[in-house]
Amino acid sequence: TTQAETSVTLYGILDAGVGYSKVDGTIVDPVTNQRVSLDRSRFGMTDSVKRGTRWGIRGKEDLGGGLYAKFQLESGFNLSKGQSTQGGRLFGRNATVGLGSDNWGQFNLGRQYNIGSRYFYSVLGPMFGGGFTQLNMGSGSGFSSVNWVRYDQLVTYETPTINGFTMGLGYSFSADDSKSNQVGFNTADNTRAITAALRYGNGPLSAFISYDQLNPSNKLSDQQTQATPRSYVVGAAYDFEVAKLALAYSRTTDGWFGGAGLPGGAVGNFSGVPTNVFVDGFKSNSYLVAVSAPVGAAGSMFGSWARADANNKDLTGGDASSNTFSLGYTYTLSKRTELYAVGSYTDNFAFLDDAKVKTVSVGLRHQF
Amino acid sequence: TTQAETSVTLYGILDAGVGYSKVDGTIVDPVTNQRVSLDRSRFGMTDSVKRGTRWGIRGKEDLGGGLYAKFQLESGFNLSKGQSTQGGRLFGRNATVGLGSDNWGQFNLGRQYNIGSRYFYSVLGPMFGGGFTQLNMGSGSGFSSVNWVRYDQLVTYETPTINGFTMGLGYSFSADDSKSNQVGFNTADNTRAITAALRYGNGPLSAFISYDQLNPSNKLSDQQTQATPRSYVVGAAYDFEVAKLALAYSRTTDGWFGGAGLPGGAVGNFSGVPTNVFVDGFKSNSYLVAVSAPVGAAGSMFGSWARADANNKDLTGGDASSNTFSLGYTYTLSKRTELYAVGSYTDNFAFLDDAKVKTVSVGLRHQF
Amino acid sequence: TTQAETSVTLYGILDAGVGYSKVDGTIVDPVTNQRVSLDRSRFGMTDSVKRGTRWGIRGKEDLGGGLYAKFQLESGFNLSKGQSTQGGRLFGRNATVGLGSDNWGQFNLGRQYNIGSRYFYSVLGPMFGGGFTQLNMGSGSGFSSVNWVRYDQLVTYETPTINGFTMGLGYSFSADDSKSNQVGFNTADNTRAITAALRYGNGPLSAFISYDQLNPSNKLSDQQTQATPRSYVVGAAYDFEVAKLALAYSRTTDGWFGGAGLPGGAVGNFSGVPTNVFVDGFKSNSYLVAVSAPVGAAGSMFGSWARADANNKDLTGGDASSNTFSLGYTYTLSKRTELYAVGSYTDNFAFLDDAKVKTVSVGLRHQF
Repeated sequence: TTQAETSVTLYGILDAGVGYSKVDGTIVDPVTNQRVSLDRSRFGMTDSVKRGTRWGIRGKEDLGGGLYAKFQLESGFNLSKGQSTQGGRLFGRNATVGLGSDNWGQFNLGRQYNIGSRYFYSVLGPMFGGGFTQLNMGSGSGFSSVNWVRYDQLVTYETPTINGFTMGLGYSFSADDSKSNQVGFNTADNTRAITAALRYGNGPLSAFISYDQLNPSNKLSDQQTQATPRSYVVGAAYDFEVAKLALAYSRTTDGWFGGAGLPGGAVGNFSGVPTNVFVDGFKSNSYLVAVSAPVGAAGSMFGSWARADANNKDLTGGDASSNTFSLGYTYTLSKRTELYAVGSYTDNFAFLDDAKVKTVSVGLRHQF
Repeated sequence: TTQAETSVTLYGILDAGVGYSKVDGTIVDPVTNQRVSLDRSRFGMTDSVKRGTRWGIRGKEDLGGGLYAKFQLESGFNLSKGQSTQGGRLFGRNATVGLGSDNWGQFNLGRQYNIGSRYFYSVLGPMFGGGFTQLNMGSGSGFSSVNWVRYDQLVTYETPTINGFTMGLGYSFSADDSKSNQVGFNTADNTRAITAALRYGNGPLSAFISYDQLNPSNKLSDQQTQATPRSYVVGAAYDFEVAKLALAYSRTTDGWFGGAGLPGGAVGNFSGVPTNVFVDGFKSNSYLVAVSAPVGAAGSMFGSWARADANNKDLTGGDASSNTFSLGYTYTLSKRTELYAVGSYTDNFAFLDDAKVKTVSVGLRHQF
Repeated sequence: TTQAETSVTLYGILDAGVGYSKVDGTIVDPVTNQRVSLDRSRFGMTDSVKRGTRWGIRGKEDLGGGLYAKFQLESGFNLSKGQSTQGGRLFGRNATVGLGSDNWGQFNLGRQYNIGSRYFYSVLGPMFGGGFTQLNMGSGSGFSSVNWVRYDQLVTYETPTINGFTMGLGYSFSADDSKSNQVGFNTADNTRAITAALRYGNGPLSAFISYDQLNPSNKLSDQQTQATPRSYVVGAAYDFEVAKLALAYSRTTDGWFGGAGLPGGAVGNFSGVPTNVFVDGFKSNSYLVAVSAPVGAAGSMFGSWARADANNKDLTGGDASSNTFSLGYTYTLSKRTELYAVGSYTDNFAFLDDAKVKTVSVGLRHQF
C-alpha cells in the first residue's frame, strides 16, 4: 500500500562496558520513618555510560525554495538485555516529523528532547563527556531541566542560526504520557510543558540559556496543583586549545524535572529523585565546572565538579548539598569508535546526608 | 549466523498534527443503569489522522519463471509518544511472507489486513481521505468488516488481475491473538475468520464486494457461540475528472468486526463499539456517500456522509441511527509530503441517542 | 545529534507455515498430585519451525592494522501475530558490540548466544535441520545447554581460527534479566553463567565440545543455591557426500539450562521443562544421531533420533527416558528461499512416562 520511497539513513550508537558501582550509607525511609541501610554494590556489564545506545532512521526531503520536510525516529535500548528503554517505547528517544525552511526555521512535532537538553548537550557535550551520566547528574541531582528531558506531544519551533544565535521554543500537550496520574483526555488533565532556550556559538565560545515550566494536570492533588515547577539553566564553554572550560548554573523551583533513580532500585519507600513532580516552595541551585583537555593524538581527559543545593526536604526527604566529582578518559580508535574509562563520586545523593554513590567503568562506544 | 543479503526497502509514513476533539451528551451505563455524562474535550497533538504512522521493511525476490518470494514487515507507532500501536505488537500493521507467480497469483502468511479492508482502501482510498478515521467510521460506527480489520494467523490467496478483476480469499486460524478469552491451543478454542473479496478496476470506475465471517471460539459462552458474525460490503467509485464520487453499503449481522473506542477512553462501563464480538440476532446496515474534487494544482477537497442503523440495542446499549459528516482538505507539497485539515461530526455515536463526537485537526503527512 | 554514518546491513529471516500438533497422555500434577489429561491438538499457522523469524542490523568497521569494530542487533518476532519474541525484548536474539583483530580474536559484549549453542549450530546446523525445534529438542528435552541458550550481560572472547580450531569463552553477569527471582543489583544476587567451547573444522569433518555452568543467585533458596548446574556437550558431523552423519552427547547435572514449554501452555501446575533451574543431585544424559542426504538437485532430507535420560524425578516430576524422532525435507527455490516439511514424535515428554507430542508442518523460509 506504499508507493513512494527514497534514501533514508539508518544509524545508531552502541555503548557497553564493564563497571563497578557502590552505594553506601543510610536514609530515613520516607514512609516508615525508620533508618535503613543503602549498602549495595555491583560488578557487571554497563550500558550507555558515555552515550545512550540507540538505533534510528532519519531523512530529509527537499521541497524546493529552501523548504524541506524531515523526520527522525530514534529507538533507545540496552545491549546488556536487548530491551527497549524509555519505558518500553519503540521510538522513545525521538519520534518527530517536521517542516522547515532555510529562511524561517523549522517546526517539529512529536516526542523529543526539550530545547534546553539539546542546547546543554551542544555546549557541554561530548568534549566534557556530556553523555556520561555522572557529568549529567545521573548519579546524583542537579540540572533538573536539562537532565536529558524528553516530552511527549511536543511541538517545537527553532529559528535558523543568525549571527551565531539560535532560538528554540516548544509546547508539550502532555509531558509524559506514561505517568498515568498526570494524563487524561481533557486538555487540562495532562501535565503540560513550556520549553525555550537560546544558544550562541562563535569560534571558541559557545553558550546557552534555557527555561522550562510545567503546568500541573488537574488530576493531581490540590497541594500539587499550587506548584508551577520552573527551571533556568545558563551554561558556557570556551576552547583554549590546550584545554576547554565549561561552566553552568541552574535554578529549579516548585518541583523537579528530570530525576535520577537510586542505583539498583528502591530501598524501602525511597527510589531516588523523582521526575516531573510538583513541590510547592521547593528551591534548588546547581553549579557545574568542567575541564577537558586533549592527551596525545587520540586521547582526551575531562574532569568535572557539580553541586546542588536544596532549600528544604520536601523533594526527597533531605536538604544536604550534593556534590558529584567525575574524571574521565576517552581514546579514539576512529571517528566512529572509541574506548573510555570514567569514575564518579557523589556524596549526599538526592540531598540525603548519608547517601554516597561511587561508580567506575570502562567501555566501548561504536557509531554507525 | 546469516549469510545471504540483498536489497531491501525501508519505508514509512509519518502523520502528526494538532487538533481539537469534543464528546458531548450522556449515556446509560450498561452495568449500573445510571445515566452518566460523556462531556470531555481535548486540544492537543494528534496522531495518524490521515494515515497510520508506520515504518516498515519489504522486499521481493525473483525466483525465475515468473515465480517470486516477497515479504512485508510493517510496524505501527505514534509520533506523540513514540509507542508501538496495535496492542504493542512490533509489526502490528503487517507481518507476512509469501510466494507468488505472475501466472497463478500469490499466497501470503501472517498478520495482515483482511481482504475487504484492502479493497475498500483501494477503491475508497486516499482520494476520499480513506485513511481519515472519520471517513472510515473511526469516530462512530459503520463499515464493521472493512474498518481496518487485521487478523492474526491469516493465510491469504489472491488471483492475478484478469480483465480488471482481482479476487482474494483468506482464512485466519485466530483472528486476534491478544483477545485471551477467544484464544487457546486447541484449534476450536480460537475465533477463526473467513475473508473474501472481489475488486474491479477499469479506467474511471473501480468497485469491490467483500464478505467476512467469524467462527466463535469454544471458550465463549453458549449464547455467544450461537452467533456467527457476517458482514457484506459493496462499494464503487467513479472519476468524473471534475470530481470523484464514491458509494458504499454494508450489512453486518450477529456481531461486530472492527469497532471504535470512545474518544478518551471508557466512561463508567462503556468504552465504545467493541471488536470481534458475537451478538446473536443483531443486525446493522451502513451507507456511505463521498465526493472529492481537485482544488487548484496541489489541493483536493472531500466530503462524506455515512450512516449506520441497528435493529436492536444488544451491541452497544443503543439502537439510534448514527450519522457521520466529514469535510477535508489536503495540500500536496510533493509526492511524499502533504498538509491536511479535516473536520468531522458524529451524532448517536455507537448507536447511543445522546452521544456526539466532534473533531477538527490540521496535520502533516510525510512518506519515505 | 548524530554525525557519522556508514553502510550497514539490514537483514532478516522469515519463517512461517501451517501445521498440526497433538499432545496426548496424562501427568500427575506436581502440586495437587492428581492425574490430569494432557490431550490437546491444534491445526493452525506455525512460526519459526525451521529458523527463528528475525530482522536485524549489523556492521563492521575496519580500524586499520587488522583491528575492527563490529555490532549486531537482532530482533526476534513471529509472523503469525507480529509480536516480539524473547520475552518482548526489542533485540532479544542478539545485541552486541565488539572489538576484534585478525591476530588475536574478538570480544563481544551484550545479550547473545552462549558459545555452545553457536558451535552446536555450526556443526549440527541447517544440514540437519538444526533450526527445527524438533531436532533441537524443543518438543521434548535433551541438550540443555545448547538449546538456543542466550545469556544477558554476556562478555565473550573468541580466538581466531588456527589449524581449524576456534575457541570461545564467556562470562555472564546475569544469565536472564527477566527472571526477577534471580536478579538484583548486588553482583551475587544475579545468576551468573560461564560458557566455553572448542570447535574444529577440516574438510568433511566438524566437531565441537562445550561446557556451561550457572552460579546461583543469592536470592534463591538455600536448597537451590547448593546446586551448581553444569552441562557438557560433544558433537561431530562428517560429510560422506552421499549423506552427512552427525552424533552428539550431552551430560547435564544439578539443574537445567534451556528448557522447553509444554506445547499449548501449562496444564494444571505443569508447564514443561524449566529454564535456568537449580536442582541439586539431578543428572541427565542425552544422545543424538542425525543423518541428512541430498535428494535431487534442490532437495534434502534429514532424519534424527534423540534420547534423554534422567536419574530422578526432581526436575520435572518424571524420570522416564524420552525419545524424539524427526524426519524432514527441504526444497530450495533459491539461496534465499526454501520450502520445507517436517514431522516429529516425542514420547515421555519432559521425562513424563505418559506424555506424547506429535507435530507435522509445512512452511516457507525466506531470507533477505
